[in-house]
Amino acid sequence: MFTHQKAPQFDVKAHAPDPAFARRFQEVLGGKWGEMTVAMQYLYQGWNARLPGKYRDMLMAIGTEELGHVEMIVTAIDQLLDKAPPMAPDDTTGSTQSSEFGLQNPQHTIVNGGGAYPHDSNGIPWSGAYITASGNLMADFHLNVTAEMQGRLQVSRLFHMTDDPGMKDLIRFLITRDHMHQMQWLSAIEELKADGLDNVPVPEAFPLEEEFGEFARTFIQASDGEAATEGRWANGPAPDGGGDFRSALIQATGEARELAPGDPRLYGTNPLTETKGLVDKAKDALS
Amino acid sequence: MFTHQKAPQFDVKAHAPDPAFARRFQEVLGGKWGEMTVAMQYLYQGWNARLPGKYRDMLMAIGTEELGHVEMIVTAIDQLLDKAPPMAPDDTTGSTQSSEFGLQNPQHTIVNGGGAYPHDSNGIPWSGAYITASGNLMADFHLNVTAEMQGRLQVSRLFHMTDDPGMKDLIRFLITRDHMHQMQWLSAIEELKADGLDNVPVPEAFPLEEEFGEFARTFIQASDGEAATEGRWANGPAPDGGGDFRSALIQATGEARELAPGDPRLYGTNPLTETKGLVDKAKDALS
Amino acid sequence: MFTHQKAPQFDVKAHAPDPAFARRFQEVLGGKWGEMTVAMQYLYQGWNARLPGKYRDMLMAIGTEELGHVEMIVTAIDQLLDKAPPMAPDDTTGSTQSSEFGLQNPQHTIVNGGGAYPHDSNGIPWSGAYITASGNLMADFHLNVTAEMQGRLQVSRLFHMTDDPGMKDLIRFLITRDHMHQMQWLSAIEELKADGLDNVPVPEAFPLEEEFGEFARTFIQASDGEAATEGRWANGPAPDGGGDFRSALIQATGEARELAPGDPRLYGTNPLTETKGLVDKAKDALS
Amino acid sequence: MFTHQKAPQFDVKAHAPDPAFARRFQEVLGGKWGEMTVAMQYLYQGWNARLPGKYRDMLMAIGTEELGHVEMIVTAIDQLLDKAPPMAPDDTTGSTQSSEFGLQNPQHTIVNGGGAYPHDSNGIPWSGAYITASGNLMADFHLNVTAEMQGRLQVSRLFHMTDDPGMKDLIRFLITRDHMHQMQWLSAIEELKADGLDNVPVPEAFPLEEEFGEFARTFIQASDGEAATEGRWANGPAPDGGGDFRSALIQATGEARELAPGDPRLYGTNPLTETKGLVDKAKDALS
Amino acid sequence: MFTHQKAPQFDVKAHAPDPAFARRFQEVLGGKWGEMTVAMQYLYQGWNARLPGKYRDMLMAIGTEELGHVEMIVTAIDQLLDKAPPMAPDDTTGSTQSSEFGLQNPQHTIVNGGGAYPHDSNGIPWSGAYITASGNLMADFHLNVTAEMQGRLQVSRLFHMTDDPGMKDLIRFLITRDHMHQMQWLSAIEELKADGLDNVPVPEAFPLEEEFGEFARTFIQASDGEAATEGRWANGPAPDGGGDFRSALIQATGEARELAPGDPRLYGTNPLTETKGLVDKAKDALS
Amino acid sequence: MFTHQKAPQFDVKAHAPDPAFARRFQEVLGGKWGEMTVAMQYLYQGWNARLPGKYRDMLMAIGTEELGHVEMIVTAIDQLLDKAPPMAPDDTTGSTQSSEFGLQNPQHTIVNGGGAYPHDSNGIPWSGAYITASGNLMADFHLNVTAEMQGRLQVSRLFHMTDDPGMKDLIRFLITRDHMHQMQWLSAIEELKADGLDNVPVPEAFPLEEEFGEFARTFIQASDGEAATEGRWANGPAPDGGGDFRSALIQATGEARELAPGDPRLYGTNPLTETKGLVDKAKDALS
Repeated sequence: MFTHQKAPQFDVKAHAPDPAFARRFQEVLGGKWGEMTVAMQYLYQGWNARLPGKYRDMLMAIGTEELGHVEMIVTAIDQLLDKAPPMAPDDTTGSTQSSEFGLQNPQHTIVNGGGAYPHDSNGIPWSGAYITASGNLMADFHLNVTAEMQGRLQVSRLFHMTDDPGMKDLIRFLITRDHMHQMQWLSAIEELKADGLDNVPVPEAFPLEEEFGEFARTFIQASDGEAATEGRWANGPAPDGGGDFRSALIQATGEARELAPGDPRLYGTNPLTETKGLVDKAKDALS
Repeated sequence: MFTHQKAPQFDVKAHAPDPAFARRFQEVLGGKWGEMTVAMQYLYQGWNARLPGKYRDMLMAIGTEELGHVEMIVTAIDQLLDKAPPMAPDDTTGSTQSSEFGLQNPQHTIVNGGGAYPHDSNGIPWSGAYITASGNLMADFHLNVTAEMQGRLQVSRLFHMTDDPGMKDLIRFLITRDHMHQMQWLSAIEELKADGLDNVPVPEAFPLEEEFGEFARTFIQASDGEAATEGRWANGPAPDGGGDFRSALIQATGEARELAPGDPRLYGTNPLTETKGLVDKAKDALS
Repeated sequence: MFTHQKAPQFDVKAHAPDPAFARRFQEVLGGKWGEMTVAMQYLYQGWNARLPGKYRDMLMAIGTEELGHVEMIVTAIDQLLDKAPPMAPDDTTGSTQSSEFGLQNPQHTIVNGGGAYPHDSNGIPWSGAYITASGNLMADFHLNVTAEMQGRLQVSRLFHMTDDPGMKDLIRFLITRDHMHQMQWLSAIEELKADGLDNVPVPEAFPLEEEFGEFARTFIQASDGEAATEGRWANGPAPDGGGDFRSALIQATGEARELAPGDPRLYGTNPLTETKGLVDKAKDALS
Repeated sequence: MFTHQKAPQFDVKAHAPDPAFARRFQEVLGGKWGEMTVAMQYLYQGWNARLPGKYRDMLMAIGTEELGHVEMIVTAIDQLLDKAPPMAPDDTTGSTQSSEFGLQNPQHTIVNGGGAYPHDSNGIPWSGAYITASGNLMADFHLNVTAEMQGRLQVSRLFHMTDDPGMKDLIRFLITRDHMHQMQWLSAIEELKADGLDNVPVPEAFPLEEEFGEFARTFIQASDGEAATEGRWANGPAPDGGGDFRSALIQATGEARELAPGDPRLYGTNPLTETKGLVDKAKDALS
Repeated sequence: MFTHQKAPQFDVKAHAPDPAFARRFQEVLGGKWGEMTVAMQYLYQGWNARLPGKYRDMLMAIGTEELGHVEMIVTAIDQLLDKAPPMAPDDTTGSTQSSEFGLQNPQHTIVNGGGAYPHDSNGIPWSGAYITASGNLMADFHLNVTAEMQGRLQVSRLFHMTDDPGMKDLIRFLITRDHMHQMQWLSAIEELKADGLDNVPVPEAFPLEEEFGEFARTFIQASDGEAATEGRWANGPAPDGGGDFRSALIQATGEARELAPGDPRLYGTNPLTETKGLVDKAKDALS
Repeated sequence: MFTHQKAPQFDVKAHAPDPAFARRFQEVLGGKWGEMTVAMQYLYQGWNARLPGKYRDMLMAIGTEELGHVEMIVTAIDQLLDKAPPMAPDDTTGSTQSSEFGLQNPQHTIVNGGGAYPHDSNGIPWSGAYITASGNLMADFHLNVTAEMQGRLQVSRLFHMTDDPGMKDLIRFLITRDHMHQMQWLSAIEELKADGLDNVPVPEAFPLEEEFGEFARTFIQASDGEAATEGRWANGPAPDGGGDFRSALIQATGEARELAPGDPRLYGTNPLTETKGLVDKAKDALS
C-alpha cells in the first residue's frame, strides 16, 4: 500500500521552456532504461519474491523511491513544455519557427496539451516487456546493475544537451542516485553469494553433471577477428574454479537433418513424391 | 560477411512430435531473453564498437555462434511440430483431442504450416527493442551477463517440461554454453577494468565532483520493511572506495511546485482566472 | 514522493493454487483496462494538471490508492501460482495433466518462475499507450468513468470464473471500489461544470461560430438499419440547448478529387504522360 | 456489406503542400483517438451487439460515416505531401532545407512515396488495442463520449497549426461532427437508462449485496493534498442514491503476507532452509 | 464515402457454438494476413494512388468488398461464442471443462463479453504496420498477390479445423474469392506492364547504368548447400533480357573498417589513447 | 551454423558524418522492408522448408548473404554518426544548431552513443511480425518478390537524399542486388510451377470443387468508380484457364442475422425481455 506527498525528494525547477529538451528527457522517463522501468522492475521483483526478509524489503524501498523519480521527471518535462507554442505567433515561414516546430514531439501539444507521458524520446510507448522479474534474485540483480549503468549513461549524455541550471541539478541528482544504486546491486550480489543462495553459473542448483563438460570452458571462435582469443575469457582459470578456459574454432558436431514432409491438410510444399497425389489426399481428408 | 553450413554445432533430434513443448520452446527462440536476442545483441554491440581489437572480435565470434543456436532451436521446434494435427482425425469431441488442440500455438499450424517463427511462447513477436548496444562496453557486458543468466534459467526450467531424450540433450548443450558465456562476460568485465577502460560507477568518466555527495552512499528507506537496512548495501564500505554506506528515511527536500497555466490554444483546464475569458482569448488567437 | 507499507488495503489470500485463474486474473492487472492503467492514468493526469487544488489533489489520492491495487492483484496471482507444476510429476500423457498444462500461461513458469507480470491474459505486455492525460480534465474524467465501468465489468465476469473464497472476496472489494470510483468521476464532471471550467461540447472554449452549423445537430444515416433514427439522438432538443436534433441520409457535398502526380524521384506510379520520359527525368535528377 | 462512392461527405482541398502539417495531421488519422479508432470502434460495437434495434443500427450508421472521415483525412494528407521534396534541389546545407527535412515524417517519402498511412504523428502504427467493444453498451457509450471529446480537443489544437484555408475548413467540419457526436452518445446514455437496460454502477446487474458496503461511498485519501476532500466526490449524497459520500485516510486492513517457497524445478530464490539441499532436490526431480 | 447495408454478401450461420474455433478464426480476421489487412491495404493504396482511372477505381472496389468480409467473419465469431461459458455450471474440476476453458481465448469473455475483435489467434492486436501502400502499384500488386495466397492458405487450413457446415460454407466462399483475387492481381500486374507503367526491375525508372553490372545477374552462394546453384535463378537467361544468370561463391570485396572514436560526451568505450584523459576532456566539455 | 569474416561483400565508406541521413538509412535496416526483414525471412523459410534440395539450399544462401547486408548498413550508419554532436559546441540558440538537433534521431546519441540499431527511420523497433514463413514456397516466394521490390524502391528514394559518394555507391550496390533478387524469386516461382509443386490458385491442392464457382471469376464492383471494370481483371480469359472473367455489382446474398442474447454472467446488454430479471438470474448464478 502506498501513500504520496506532494513535495519531491529533490527540487525540480526548469528556468525556461525547452520543448526540444523535453522531447529528449522522455527517454529516461518512458524509454527502455528509464525511470518507469526501474520503478516497476524493482516493485515486481519485490512483490514476487518468495524469500522474505532483507532482499524483498530492500526491493520495495528502492522501487518506491524510483516511483518518486518518475514524478520528478514528469514535472520537469511539464515545466519544459510551459507555453510550448503550437505554432509561432506571427511568423510561420521563417526557419526559426520551422526548426522549433521540428524539434518538438508533436504529441506533446496535440495529444497531451503540454504534458509528459510514459513514452520514449521517439514517442514509443513504455512496454511491460521492458521489465523482468524472473523469481531468481541473482539473475535479476545483474539486470538491475546494468539498468542503473544504462540509466546513468543516458542521463550523463543528457547532461550535455541542456544549459538550464535547474535541469542540470536534477540530472546531477539522478546521476548520483544511479551511482549509489549500482553499488547497491553489486553489494546485494555479493551478499546473495555470501548467504549461499546462488552462484555462478546461475542457477547454481541445476546439476553440473548434466552439462556436456567439453563445452563448458571453451571460447568458440566463429569469426576471423584474431584478437578474440587474446582475452581472459579464452585463457587462464575460469571463474567457477572448474578448470582453465581454452579456445577452439567453431565446428559442426551435429548432422544436417531434413525435415519430414508436412501434413497434407496444411498445404505446405512437400517432396514431389508426396505432392503427387496431394490433391487426392486432401480430398480424402475432406470426406 | 557471413557464410553458412548446414550441419549444426550440436545435433538436433526430437524423438517424437510434441506441439505443447514446441509452443514452450519458442520462449528461448523469440522471447525477450531467447537466442534471437543474444545473437542480435552481441552482433550489434560488435558492429557498433568504436574500440578495435579483442573485445570487438570476441563480440563478433559469440554473436555468430548464437546465430547457429537460433537455427538449432528452429530445427528442434520444426521436428516437434512434425505431423502436428490440425484436428484429430476421427474424434473431434473427446477431451484428449480438445486438450491437445488447446496445448498448441494455433499459429504453428494456421500461419506457419508446421514451422517455428521469431515469437515467444505466447506468440508475441520478437522486438528490436529487446537488444541494447549502448556504445559503453562495461554497461553492455553487465547486460550480457544477465542475458546468459536469464537464458540458462529458462532452459533449466524447460529441461523439466519434456521427456524427449533428444530435446534434453539439446537443452543440456544450451545450458552448458550459457554456463561458459556467463563466465566469458564476467571475465570480460574484469578485463575492461584491468585495461583501464571503465569502472564503477559506469560511466567512470563523468566527473564525480558534479555529483551531490550526500546522495551517493545513502540507502534510502521508502517502505516499512525493516530488514531492508540489514544488508551490505546499507552498511560498511561502499565498493567504489569513497566511504561507508549509510541509510536514511526518504524525505522531501524539494518544493511542491504548481505548473503554469497552459497556452489557451491547447484548450487544457486552466485556473478559473485564466479560464474566464478563455473563449475570448481563443477567439483572439484565431484572428 | 511515495512511501510504502507492506500490509495491504484489503486482505489477499488464495486458498489454493489455480494457474488457469492466475492467467485470467492478469487481464485486470496488465490489460488495457486493468489496475496498471488506472493507477498510471490518474497519476499522469494529476502530475500534468495545470490547475492546482481539489482536482489535482484528488487525482493524486486515487492514483496512489490504485497503485496499492496493483500490488494486491500481483500478490493474488503469485499465490495462485504457488507450486504451479511445470509438468505433472508422474503422468505426462494423461488428459488431466495435458489440460492443466494447456490452461497455464507458459511464461508464468518459464519466464517469471511462478510470478505475475504487467501483461494481460494473453501475455501481451502493458503499454504506455493505454493511458491518456490530455490536459483537459473534462475529456479525461469521461475516460476515467469508462475505465471504472470497463474495470468493474471485467472483475464481475471474473467473479464467475473462480470458486476460491479468498479470490471472491478480493474481487468483491475491487467491484466495490469501482462502484465508488464511477460515482467519483461522475461527481467530478458535474463539479467541473458547476465551477465553470468546461462544458459540452468539449472543449467549450473553441468558438462555436467557427463550426458549420448545419452539421452540428444532424444524425447522419449511412446504413440501412431503419431503427437508427428512432433514438433520442435524432429527435428532440439537443443537450447543448442550441436546437433540435434532426436526421438526414448521408450525402456527398464534396468533390471527388484526383491527386497530383508525384515527384519522379519517389518512383511512384504516375499518369502515363508523366511516366513517359520518367527515366529521363530521373536521370536528369541524378546529375 | 459496404458500398463506396468517390465524392466525399465534405470537400477536401489543401491549397499548398505542407509536409510538417501532414505529419501532425496523422495524429487524428492513425493515433489512439483518431478516425481509424472511432470508425472501427463503432463498427465492432455494432457488429457484436446482442441487442437488435435502434442502438445497433445507430452504431452501424455512425461507424460507416466515420470510415468516410478516414478517407477524407487520408486525401488531405496526400495533398499536403504533393511534391514533398526528398531533398532540396540545389541547397543541401542551408538551414531552411535542413529544417524542412527535419519537419517531415521520413516514412512519408521513403516508405509511402508521398502518401498517408494508418500511423500517428510519430509514425507509430495504429493498433487494434485502441478499440473496445465490451458487449456492455453503457460502458462503451461512455468510452465513445470521451473518444469524441479527445478527438475534438486534438482537431481544435490542430486548427492553430495551419493557415491553409482548405485545411481549416476541413477541421471545422470535423470539429462540428465531434460536437454532434458528443451529444449523440450522451443522449444514447440517457436512453439506455430510460429503457431500463443498465445504470450506475455499471454493470447494474451485479448484485449490490455482494459488495462490501463500507467501501462503496468512501473517498480514500492517500496523498497529502488537502484539497482532495473538498470536492463533491467526498461530500453530500452519492449519485446512486444509496447514501452520502464520506472520506477517510487510506489504511491497511489486510495482512502483509509472505509467499510460499517456489517449486525447486523453477530455480527461483527460496528461503535458505529450502535452498539447502536444493541441488539434491533438483537432482531427485531429474531422475 | 461509404454506405452500409445489414445483409451480407454471403450467408453467415454457425450451427453451434465453438469457442476453440472462434479463437482460431480470429487469425483471418485480425492477423497479419487477415481481412482487416487486405481491406485496409487496398483502400489505402486506392486513396493514395496518384494515377486516376481503372487501377484506382479497382482498388476502391475490392477494398470495399473486403470490408464486408471483415463484417462476415466478425459475425461468424460472435455466433461461435454464443453462450460461451465463462466456467462450467456444475463441474469445475473435470477435464472436459478444464480443457474447454483452456481452448478459449480468455479475452473473448473477460474483455469482449462474447464478441470478436481485431486481434489474431493469439490475441495480438492488428497493427497498421501490416499494410503497405508504397505509391508504386507494381510493387504493391505483388504484395497483394501474396496477401491473397497467404489468406487462401490460412482459410484452407481452417477448413480442416471445423465440422460446422455453416462455417465450412463461409470458408468455401472466402477460398473462392481469394482464388478470384489472386487472378485479379496477377492480371493487373500484366496490365501495368502492357500499359508501360513499370516493369522488372521495379522501379524500372531508376537508371540501370547506375547499377554495378557485375552484381546484377549473379547468384551468390553463401551456404554449403550445393543444390542451390541447380535452379533457374543461377542458369540461363535472366528475365530482364539483359544477359545470363551465373553463380559465384560469396567473397569480400570491401575493406574491414575500424570506426572512429566517439565524442567523449557520449561516454562510450574508446581506444585507450583516447580514453586516457577522457575524464579531463569530459570536464573540459562541462565548463 | 555460421561463420563470419570482417571484410564486407562490398566496401562501406561514408565521406562525412550526416546524422539526418543516418536517421533515414535506418528505414532499410530495421524497417518493415529492410535488410533485417529479408535476412530473417529467407533464413526462416529455409530452416522450415520440408522439401530438401535446391529451394531450401537457395534460401539459406540468400538469407546468409542478406545478413552481411545488415552488417554493411549498420557500419554505414555508424560512420554517418561519427562525432554526432549531442549539442553544438558554442552556439546553442542559432537556427542551424537547432535544426541539426531536430534532424537527428535522439536515440542515436542518448541510447546508442553514436550507433545503429534494429529500428526504422522513426525509431520503431523491428518486429518478428514483419516476416512470414508459411510452409508454402509458392506463397512465400511471391512475398519475397515484393520484398525486393519494396526494398529497391526505398533505396532508390534514399539515393536522392544524400550527396555522399560512398553512400551513393553502397546504395547502388544494394539496388543492384535487389534487381538480381527480384529476378531470382520470379525465376524460382516459374521453377516451382515447372516442377509441379504448386500453381495458381495457391494452394493448388485444395480441391476446386469445394469452391462456389459463381464467385471464382467475377470482379465485384462495390464503388462508383466506373473505370474499375475496364481492366483485364474483369474481361477476357482468367489466368487459371477455367473460363472468362466477368463483373457484377456487389449484392447481398445472405441474411441480416441477429445475435443470440449473451450469457447473463457476462453482463452485456441484452434484449429487455432478457434483461428484465437479469439481476435475479445473475443472483441465481451466484448461488
